[in-house]
Amino acid sequence: MNDTATPAAPKRFYWEDFTPGRLIPLGRIAVTREQVLEFAGRFDPQPFHLDDAAAEHSLFGRLAASGWHTCAMTMRLMCDTYLNDSSSLGSPGIDNLRWLKPVYPGDTLGGEMEVLEARVMNSRPQVGLVLSRWRMFNQDGVDVMTMQGWGMFGRRPDAST
Amino acid sequence: MNDTATPAAPKRFYWEDFTPGRLIPLGRIAVTREQVLEFAGRFDPQPFHLDDAAAEHSLFGRLAASGWHTCAMTMRLMCDTYLNDSSSLGSPGIDNLRWLKPVYPGDTLGGEMEVLEARVMNSRPQVGLVLSRWRMFNQDGVDVMTMQGWGMFGRRPDAST
Repeated sequence: MNDTATPAAPKRFYWEDFTPGRLIPLGRIAVTREQVLEFAGRFDPQPFHLDDAAAEHSLFGRLAASGWHTCAMTMRLMCDTYLNDSSSLGSPGIDNLRWLKPVYPGDTLGGEMEVLEARVMNSRPQVGLVLSRWRMFNQDGVDVMTMQGWGMFGRRPDAST
Repeated sequence: MNDTATPAAPKRFYWEDFTPGRLIPLGRIAVTREQVLEFAGRFDPQPFHLDDAAAEHSLFGRLAASGWHTCAMTMRLMCDTYLNDSSSLGSPGIDNLRWLKPVYPGDTLGGEMEVLEARVMNSRPQVGLVLSRWRMFNQDGVDVMTMQGWGMFGRRPDAST
């Protein structure tokens, strides 16, 4: 009469799959002017994210996406390529987030995740921690953003095999 | 015939105003279920950000906002309280971003910015750097997110006074 006895569907990625050195491509995402303006209007309404003339006189040179928009787009690529078919339990945070180059409307961003470290949580042996580095680059192969952070993942149910 | 000769309107905050130790309250923002679901649907479609039942069985206990949504809401508060009336030139990045506690629909978040360090850029003496720490807390006074980062700000035009 309830679903607690239903075994969870198997996932493609458990903690055991995130071995240090592993690279996972994040796919690609097109950055549209409409989305840049919409995100900035809601969350980061600084003139260089909203107004062409103001952006032209800024360090960006022309209208550029909010750095938080780039983070959000990266998160979406993570979900689509591995997180939503994983035992992900969330993340305690991010370090070394660097907006290296502006992201412009019309850009197409690609990305890559690299596993740096993995260990089991001392206090919860059924949960594994993964330290990842994410790198986003544009259509010219220029890195536009990098960051790293720990994620929590459930261990594979048949971890004894 | 063009606007390049028009002096910029005076701002409330120039680099000189961000003195170490200064605290700037960030105001408050209500977290609605509709916005939590919309942000997650677009940028972070993990089950615990989109589905009540899935969230109940997660570490969050119930439906929780994406951590990136909390960052985006924080950015909006920054813009509304000081950045959009400042000589802000952008930011190279963020460190020590920590999602300390879940943010739930129905929460009201408040925040505070603290200036940790300020110095003039060696390579561009007309640009100042400010290291800030941001703290977000909920209606119970519990910190939900902290982060720090450098911002670039133009210097006050009459900096000789």
